[in-house]
Amino acid sequence: MASIIRASVVQSCTSRFNLSETLDKFENLTRLAKERDGTQLVVFPEAFIGGYPKWSTFSCAVGDRQPQGRDEFLKYHTAAIEIPSPAIHRIEEVSKATGVFVVMGVIERDGGTLYCTAIFVDPVEGLVAKHRKLLPTASERLIWGQGDGSTLPVVGKRFESCVQKAHAVHTKISAAICWENYVPLLRTYYYSLGTQIYCAPTVDSRDTWQSSMQHIALEGRCFVLSACQFATEKDYPLDHAVADPNNRNPDNIMINGGSVIISPLGKVLAGPTRQPEEILTADLDLDDVVRGKFDLDAVGHYARPDVFQLKANIPPH
Amino acid sequence: MASIIRASVVQSCTSRFNLSETLDKFENLTRLAKERDGTQLVVFPEAFIGGYPKWSTFSCAVGDRQPQGRDEFLKYHTAAIEIPSPAIHRIEEVSKATGVFVVMGVIERDGGTLYCTAIFVDPVEGLVAKHRKLLPTASERLIWGQGDGSTLPVVGKRFESCVQKAHAVHTKISAAICWENYVPLLRTYYYSLGTQIYCAPTVDSRDTWQSSMQHIALEGRCFVLSACQFATEKDYPLDHAVADPNNRNPDNIMINGGSVIISPLGKVLAGPTRQPEEILTADLDLDDVVRGKFDLDAVGHYARPDVFQLKANIPPH
Amino acid sequence: MASIIRASVVQSCTSRFNLSETLDKFENLTRLAKERDGTQLVVFPEAFIGGYPKWSTFSCAVGDRQPQGRDEFLKYHTAAIEIPSPAIHRIEEVSKATGVFVVMGVIERDGGTLYCTAIFVDPVEGLVAKHRKLLPTASERLIWGQGDGSTLPVVGKRFESCVQKAHAVHTKISAAICWENYVPLLRTYYYSLGTQIYCAPTVDSRDTWQSSMQHIALEGRCFVLSACQFATEKDYPLDHAVADPNNRNPDNIMINGGSVIISPLGKVLAGPTRQPEEILTADLDLDDVVRGKFDLDAVGHYARPDVFQLKANIPPH
Amino acid sequence: MASIIRASVVQSCTSRFNLSETLDKFENLTRLAKERDGTQLVVFPEAFIGGYPKWSTFSCAVGDRQPQGRDEFLKYHTAAIEIPSPAIHRIEEVSKATGVFVVMGVIERDGGTLYCTAIFVDPVEGLVAKHRKLLPTASERLIWGQGDGSTLPVVGKRFESCVQKAHAVHTKISAAICWENYVPLLRTYYYSLGTQIYCAPTVDSRDTWQSSMQHIALEGRCFVLSACQFATEKDYPLDHAVADPNNRNPDNIMINGGSVIISPLGKVLAGPTRQPEEILTADLDLDDVVRGKFDLDAVGHYARPDVFQLKANIPPH
Amino acid sequence: MASIIRASVVQSCTSRFNLSETLDKFENLTRLAKERDGTQLVVFPEAFIGGYPKWSTFSCAVGDRQPQGRDEFLKYHTAAIEIPSPAIHRIEEVSKATGVFVVMGVIERDGGTLYCTAIFVDPVEGLVAKHRKLLPTASERLIWGQGDGSTLPVVGKRFESCVQKAHAVHTKISAAICWENYVPLLRTYYYSLGTQIYCAPTVDSRDTWQSSMQHIALEGRCFVLSACQFATEKDYPLDHAVADPNNRNPDNIMINGGSVIISPLGKVLAGPTRQPEEILTADLDLDDVVRGKFDLDAVGHYARPDVFQLKANIPPH
Amino acid sequence: MASIIRASVVQSCTSRFNLSETLDKFENLTRLAKERDGTQLVVFPEAFIGGYPKWSTFSCAVGDRQPQGRDEFLKYHTAAIEIPSPAIHRIEEVSKATGVFVVMGVIERDGGTLYCTAIFVDPVEGLVAKHRKLLPTASERLIWGQGDGSTLPVVGKRFESCVQKAHAVHTKISAAICWENYVPLLRTYYYSLGTQIYCAPTVDSRDTWQSSMQHIALEGRCFVLSACQFATEKDYPLDHAVADPNNRNPDNIMINGGSVIISPLGKVLAGPTRQPEEILTADLDLDDVVRGKFDLDAVGHYARPDVFQLKANIPPH
Repeated sequence: MASIIRASVVQSCTSRFNLSETLDKFENLTRLAKERDGTQLVVFPEAFIGGYPKWSTFSCAVGDRQPQGRDEFLKYHTAAIEIPSPAIHRIEEVSKATGVFVVMGVIERDGGTLYCTAIFVDPVEGLVAKHRKLLPTASERLIWGQGDGSTLPVVGKRFESCVQKAHAVHTKISAAICWENYVPLLRTYYYSLGTQIYCAPTVDSRDTWQSSMQHIALEGRCFVLSACQFATEKDYPLDHAVADPNNRNPDNIMINGGSVIISPLGKVLAGPTRQPEEILTADLDLDDVVRGKFDLDAVGHYARPDVFQLKANIPPH
Repeated sequence: MASIIRASVVQSCTSRFNLSETLDKFENLTRLAKERDGTQLVVFPEAFIGGYPKWSTFSCAVGDRQPQGRDEFLKYHTAAIEIPSPAIHRIEEVSKATGVFVVMGVIERDGGTLYCTAIFVDPVEGLVAKHRKLLPTASERLIWGQGDGSTLPVVGKRFESCVQKAHAVHTKISAAICWENYVPLLRTYYYSLGTQIYCAPTVDSRDTWQSSMQHIALEGRCFVLSACQFATEKDYPLDHAVADPNNRNPDNIMINGGSVIISPLGKVLAGPTRQPEEILTADLDLDDVVRGKFDLDAVGHYARPDVFQLKANIPPH
Repeated sequence: MASIIRASVVQSCTSRFNLSETLDKFENLTRLAKERDGTQLVVFPEAFIGGYPKWSTFSCAVGDRQPQGRDEFLKYHTAAIEIPSPAIHRIEEVSKATGVFVVMGVIERDGGTLYCTAIFVDPVEGLVAKHRKLLPTASERLIWGQGDGSTLPVVGKRFESCVQKAHAVHTKISAAICWENYVPLLRTYYYSLGTQIYCAPTVDSRDTWQSSMQHIALEGRCFVLSACQFATEKDYPLDHAVADPNNRNPDNIMINGGSVIISPLGKVLAGPTRQPEEILTADLDLDDVVRGKFDLDAVGHYARPDVFQLKANIPPH
Repeated sequence: MASIIRASVVQSCTSRFNLSETLDKFENLTRLAKERDGTQLVVFPEAFIGGYPKWSTFSCAVGDRQPQGRDEFLKYHTAAIEIPSPAIHRIEEVSKATGVFVVMGVIERDGGTLYCTAIFVDPVEGLVAKHRKLLPTASERLIWGQGDGSTLPVVGKRFESCVQKAHAVHTKISAAICWENYVPLLRTYYYSLGTQIYCAPTVDSRDTWQSSMQHIALEGRCFVLSACQFATEKDYPLDHAVADPNNRNPDNIMINGGSVIISPLGKVLAGPTRQPEEILTADLDLDDVVRGKFDLDAVGHYARPDVFQLKANIPPH
Repeated sequence: MASIIRASVVQSCTSRFNLSETLDKFENLTRLAKERDGTQLVVFPEAFIGGYPKWSTFSCAVGDRQPQGRDEFLKYHTAAIEIPSPAIHRIEEVSKATGVFVVMGVIERDGGTLYCTAIFVDPVEGLVAKHRKLLPTASERLIWGQGDGSTLPVVGKRFESCVQKAHAVHTKISAAICWENYVPLLRTYYYSLGTQIYCAPTVDSRDTWQSSMQHIALEGRCFVLSACQFATEKDYPLDHAVADPNNRNPDNIMINGGSVIISPLGKVLAGPTRQPEEILTADLDLDDVVRGKFDLDAVGHYARPDVFQLKANIPPH
Repeated sequence: MASIIRASVVQSCTSRFNLSETLDKFENLTRLAKERDGTQLVVFPEAFIGGYPKWSTFSCAVGDRQPQGRDEFLKYHTAAIEIPSPAIHRIEEVSKATGVFVVMGVIERDGGTLYCTAIFVDPVEGLVAKHRKLLPTASERLIWGQGDGSTLPVVGKRFESCVQKAHAVHTKISAAICWENYVPLLRTYYYSLGTQIYCAPTVDSRDTWQSSMQHIALEGRCFVLSACQFATEKDYPLDHAVADPNNRNPDNIMINGGSVIISPLGKVLAGPTRQPEEILTADLDLDDVVRGKFDLDAVGHYARPDVFQLKANIPPH
C-alpha cells in the first residue's frame, strides 16, 4: 500500500492574457494545493500561460488576412513566454519552494512562431522537459506551429510515497494536449515508454471529453489527470471575441471546465468539476498501474507486434 | 440528405449453447428487425453463435488442467461452427431472404482450435469476410486461438439509401470484438482503410464500455454499432459456472447488455439498453463521417506520419 | 576424444518468490557444481528467478477478474526482474567468478507485462542473449506475454575441452522452455542454426516429459539438458494456491522434478532425478553430434527442402 | 461417448520375401482382427509386402558395386508389387470382405526403382491413396527411391461408431514410415491437415522408438498406431544376410517388434508388444483429439504463424 | 583464330584425407600447370579436398549402423571443409597468385551433413560459385546429402585469349560431378544456359567413362574437361577399406584415372591418361562451340520445345 | 536366368532406291536371322526402305532451287511407301511367317511430304506403331518433314523366353533415329515410359557413334540395338551424287556401318561391325535392366523431379 502519491489538477484560467497576473495565480494555486491538500504534483490547463484566444478568428478567411488580425497576433505573441525566460524561472522557484512537480500548458514563443506547449518543472531540477503540441486543431493552425518528435518526453520521476516516509515511488509522466488525446498513435507511443501519469491539459470542456478521458485511462492503464480551463468573458481582454457579440456579459462562460482525475481501471477519483476555480486532489496508488496491466497491456501482452508495429521518428538527443 | 442507411444492433444471447435454437433466434430477430424497423444491416453480439462461457475456468490453474475442463472444452468445441458449414449456409439464407447485411460474432472451429470470429454476410454474395479476434482476453486464452493479419477485413458495401430509392450509398464496414476495442493500433488500421461503420460485438457490459464506444466514434469519426449479449443464468446450460454457485437463480444476470449506436460526432443515436432482448435501430447518415472528419481525421490531416507510422503485416491474398 | 565439455542441470526451486534468497541459492548451487563436479555450463529450471505460481488461477474466469487476482499479479510482478538489473548483474558476477556458463529460466518484467524468459550468461561477456517463451500454456497466458522472433538466439560458445587443456570446443546453445518443446517448427529452427546443446528449462514433471526429451535428442541429434523445478508447498508463500486446499502440508509436492541429460543418440547420461535438490553432471562429447548426424540430419541430408521449407520471421538486429 | 472406433496394429513379418505367402498371412491376420476383436482399421508394418532386407549390404561400398548385389536387387525387385496389380486387388478384396480399412507398408515397384510405400485401402472404395517414404535411411538409399510431395495423403474416412450404431465418426488418417517419424516438418504437415489417426509402420524395434511414438501422440494430439515387424532368421530366405554369419540360428531375432497404440494425451492404450505375432486392438475415442488439443494445438492456438511458417510443395492433382 | 584459351585437367589424388598436404599438392600442381603449360583454367577431380572413401561401407547394412561407422564418419566430417573457410581462402590465394581459374571437387561440411561439391574460384573475384552434387550414387548416399536447384551455377567468365593479347574471350563454365553426367535433364539444363566448358570432376575410372565424355561433348557441343583421381592404397589412411583386405599392397590401384579433354566435335584433345599424377593441357578454341552447334544444337535448332520442355526449379537468389 | 530373348541388328543397305529389290533383301535377311540365329526381334537401319540419298544436295542453295532437284525429289518420293500399303503388308507377311518382330527405318510418304520413319511390326498383330523422326538433320530438312508427339511410341511386347519355353518375357521397345539419339529430352521420355530395348536405326557410321550408343545404354539402363546401313556407290542409282564425282568407284564406301548391340551395363554384346552385310545377334537378359537400374535409374531413384521435370506434349489417341 506504499506506492501512493498525491496529485492535483487545477481548474482555472489565464488572467486576461496578463502574464504576471497569471503567474501570481499559478503561485497561489500551487501553494494552496500544497498547503491544503499536501499535493506532490499539479497539472494546469492548456495555454494557462499565454491564454487561449477563444472565439477569435484573427480576421482570417480563406485567402485573406487583415491588419487587425496581425495586430491581434502581435499582442498574443507578446503575452507568450520563451523557454527559458524569467517566467520559467519564476515557475521553477515556486516548484522549488513548495516541492510540487508542475505540468502546465503555456504558449511558447520561439522567434516568430508560437507553440502550444506543456512544460514539466521538477522542484529539484527545475524545467526538465517540454512537449509541443503536435497538431493544432482547426483555427489554432492560424496561430500555433506544430511540434515534432523532439518534444515528446516521458519524464521519469522519483517521488516519496505520501503514506510511507522514505519509500521511493518511481513513476513516469507525459502530457497530451487537448485533441492530441484523439491521436491513437501518440497515445500508444506514450504507453510504450511506460507512462503511468498521463496529463491532459485541455480547453475542451464538452461532455464527450469525459468519455475520452475514461477510455484513455482504461486503454493505457494509466492515471489520467485532465486539467481544463474554466473562463468567462471577464477573464478575457475587454475587446476579445465572444460567442455572441450582441450579448456580451462578463459571466458568460467561454470555457466550461470539466477537470477530472481517473484511475488505471477507469474509476473517476475526482471531478469532473464545473467550478470556476477548483483544485481536485487524489491519491494515486501507482501499483494500480500493474494491477490494471494484468487485465490489459496494450503495449505488452495485449499487443500484436507481429501484426502491428508503431514506428516513431524520435531524433536522437 | 440522401446517403442514409438504416442499421440495427441486436441485444440478445446464445440459447444454452444450442446451435439450432440460436440460429432460430437469429432468424426471428433478423426478420423482426427487417419487418418492424426496415433495417438494412444488423450487428449481433460477440460469440452469439457458440456462446460465451462466462464464469467458467475450464478447470485450469497455472501448471494444471483437469479432465473435466477438457470435457467442457469438447462440448464447447462441438457447439462451435466451421466456416463454411450448414450453419453459415443458414445465416446466408436468412440474409438473402431478408436482404439484411449481417455482422455477427461466432465461435469458429478450425481443427482443434477455436477462434472468436466476426462474420460478414451479404444478402447477395453470402459470406464475404471474417475477422478472427487478435487477442483473447484473460481466461479466453484458454479456449480461443489468436487471429492474425489475414483476417482483418474492411468490407466495402453498396447499400441503397433508405430515404431515396436507387441512390447508392457506398460504405465500409469492419469489426473489432470486445477488448480489441482497447487496441489503438488495430483501430488505427481500421480507420486507415476507411471504416465508416465500426461494429463492436462484445460481452463487456460494464458502464465504462459506453465511454470507449463514444471515444472511438469521435476518434475514428465513424458510426459505432456495439451489440452486447444480455444473458441470465437460465440462458446457460444447467451445470454451467455462475458468479456465485451458492446462489444460483435463473434470473441472475450473467451479461448485462449495453448495446448502443453512436454517431461520428459522438452522439448516442440509440441505447444504451439494458433490456434482455431488444433491437436498436438508427438511421446512419454516412455524410456525417465527412462532417466529422472536417474536425479531426486521425489517419489524415490529424495524423503526423513524419513522427508516427503504423506498420501492418497483412499477408497478400 | 578431446571435444568434451562438462555440463550440469540443476534441479531445485524458487525460494518462496523471494528474489534474494533465490539468488543466494543460485550462487550456492553454481559454486557447488563448479567445485564438486568441475562443470562448465549449468542449466537452471524455468522461472527459477521469479517463480512458477503453480495451482494459482489468479482469480480469473472467462469474462471475469477479481481484485485479489490483480493483487496477486502485483506481487508476482514485483518478484520478477528486469533485464538488465542488479539481479542480472549478480548472476553475471557469479558466472564470472566460477567461470561457469549459465542458462536459466527467469520471469522478466518489461513494463506492465511479464515474460517467461531464458537468459544466457557467459563468464567473460556477461549476459549475451535471452529467449522469451513464444507460447505460454493455458493459465500462463493470464500472467505472461508472448515472445517473438527477436528473442530466439542460438548462442555460439567456445569452451575449453575438459579433458585436454587448451583444446577449443566450439559449440552452439539454445533453449526451449517447457511446452515450447512440443512446437516442431521452433525445434527445427534451432536445429537449422546448428544447436548442439539444447537446453529445456521446464516445470513439466510428468513421466511423459522423459519421452519428449529423448525424442528431441534423437530428432535433433543434440545434447538435451532439461532442468525441472522440484518444489513442495513449503517452497511457496504460505497463502499460495495448492492442489488441495483442505490438505495443506509443507511436504506436499508441487513440482516433481525429472531433470535429465541425454546424448544425441538418445542415451540418458544422467537422471532423471526426483530428488528435491540435485545437480546432475555429465561429460558431453560434442563429436557425438556428428556421429549422430551421420545417421540422421533433420536439417541436412534427412531434410527434403524441395517438399518442406521452414520460413522463420526473425527481425534483423 | 459415441465417437469411438476400434483399431488394430499387427505385429508380424513378411514371409521369406514370398508374395503369396505374405498375402495369405495378411488375409488371415485381418480376418482374425475382425472376427476376434471387431476391428475397423488395421495397420501393418513397413515393407510387410516385399520385405525388409535387414543386414544386407547389397554388396555396395563407396565407389563400388558387385554383380551379386545386382542379383540380390533383382530378386528384391521381383518380390515387390506394382500399384495397381493383382496383389493390390487381393488386398482390396480382403478389405471389402471384412469391412476393415487397411494401412500397410509395401515395397512398390515402379519401373527400375522401388519405393517404400504405405497404402490406404478402403473396404468400399478400394485403394484410395498411397504414401511413398520421402527419405530412405542409410543403406535403404541403395535400394529405394524417394517419394515427393505428390504422395503425402491425409485420408478422410467416415467410420460407424463401434459403440453406437449409425453414429458417423469422421476422421483423418495419415502415415509416416519408420524414420520419417523423425522429420518434424513432415509431421507438422500431417498435423496441419487434421490427422487424427497417425499410422507409423516401421521396422525400428529399438526401445527409443517408444519415446518417439509417445512424443508424437502428445505433440500432434493424435492417436499413434505403430506397427513394427517381428522377424527371426527363419522368416528370411536361407541365404539372406544376418547379424552374425558365424552364428546363424532360425530363432535369432532380426527385427524385435514393439508395436504400440497411444492416445492423444500420451497414454499407451495397447502394447508395446515383443511377441512374434500379435494383434493389438484398442478403442479410439476420437473426441480425445479435441480434449488433447484443448491443452496444445501445434497447428492452431499453440502455433506462431507470425514467427514460423511451413511451406509445403504439394503439386496439384 | 583468336578466341582460344588454354585449359588443364589434373589427375592426382587426395593425400590420405589430410587437408594441409592436399592443399599443398593443389598449390604445387596449379603452379606447375601455370608455369609449365601457361594454363588459364584448371579442373581438379571430385572430392579432391576431403577425399573419396572408396571401398568403405561405413559399417552400414540395411536397418543397421555400427559405432565404428559413426567414428569413420566423424573423421571424414573433420577432413571436410566449410565454405567459406581458411582452406577456401588458401585456394583463392593460389588462384590469385597464379591467375588460374580453378574448378575443384571438395567435400563440403554444412552442419552435420556433408556435400560433394564443385567450387569455382576466380583469380580476381575469389570463390564465385559452388555446385552441390544433386544425386550421390549408391553408398555415397550414406555419407553425402543432396544438392538442389540453388547450386546449379553456370559461371560466366572473361578470359584473355592465349594467342592474342587483350582479346577478350567470354565463355561459360559449369560442372557435373561423376554420375551426374548420366542425368540427361541436368545436362540439358547446363546446355540451355550456354555452357561451353563442361567440367566433369569424377572418380569413375572405368573405360566406359570415355564414351560418356565423348557423347556429352557431341550432344552438348561443348568442351568436356574430365578430371579423375588416380589413387593407390598408399594414398589412403592405413586403416582404410580396400578392395581385398587379404591382399593389401601400397601400390594397389584404388582409382584408375582416365582424365581427358574433348572438343565440341567429339575430338579427344588430350588424354585419357592412366598416369598417377599428370596435368593434361589443351588449347580450347571457343569458336568450335559455334562450329559444332551448326550441326546440332540440342537446346536450339535441334530441340522440339513443342514436344518436350524442361522445367527447372531454380530458386531466385 | 529365364527372361532372355534373342535379338538381331541387320547391317545392310537399300538396293538402288528400288523398293521390290529392297523388300526381297529384307525378307532374305529376316529369314536368315530366324533360321541361322533363331532371332526373335530384328532391327533394320534408318531409311532402309526408300533409301538415304547421301551426298545429294537436291540442287538447293540458299535462296535457290533447281528443276533437277525437284525431279530428284520426285524419284525419291516415288521410292517411298505409304502406311499402310502393299509394301507394309509384305513386311507384315514376312514377320508373321518367321515369327520375328521387326523394327525398320522407312521413308514414309504422306501426301507431298516424306517422313523418316521407324515402323514396328509384330508377327501376330502386324504393324503396331510407327515413329516419325522428330528432327531431320541439316540437308535432310530439304526432303523430310518433322514428326511430332503423336508418333513417339513405346511398344509393349510379350516374347517367349528363348531359353525357357512358355516363360513370358514382357518388355518395351522404342526407336530413335540417327541424330535423335543426341536429343536428351527424347531419350529421357523413352526411358520414363520403361524402354528396355532401345533401337537406334541410323546412317551415322562415324567412330564417335559407338561412344553415344554405349553412353545411352548406360544412361538409360537399356539394351541398345543400333543398325546402320553399309553402302557403296554401287548400291545407289548410277547418277546419284557421290563424295568425289571425279573418282567414282562402285566400291567406294558411302556409309560405313558400325551396327552394334550393347547391354544395360554398357557391355558390347555384338559388333561393332564394318562388314557390308551382316546380322549381329545377341541374347538379351531383360533382368539386366533391373540389375542396371539398381546402379542408376535416370527416371527413378536417380532423378530429381523436385529440380527437373520433363513435360512431354503427347496428344491423346
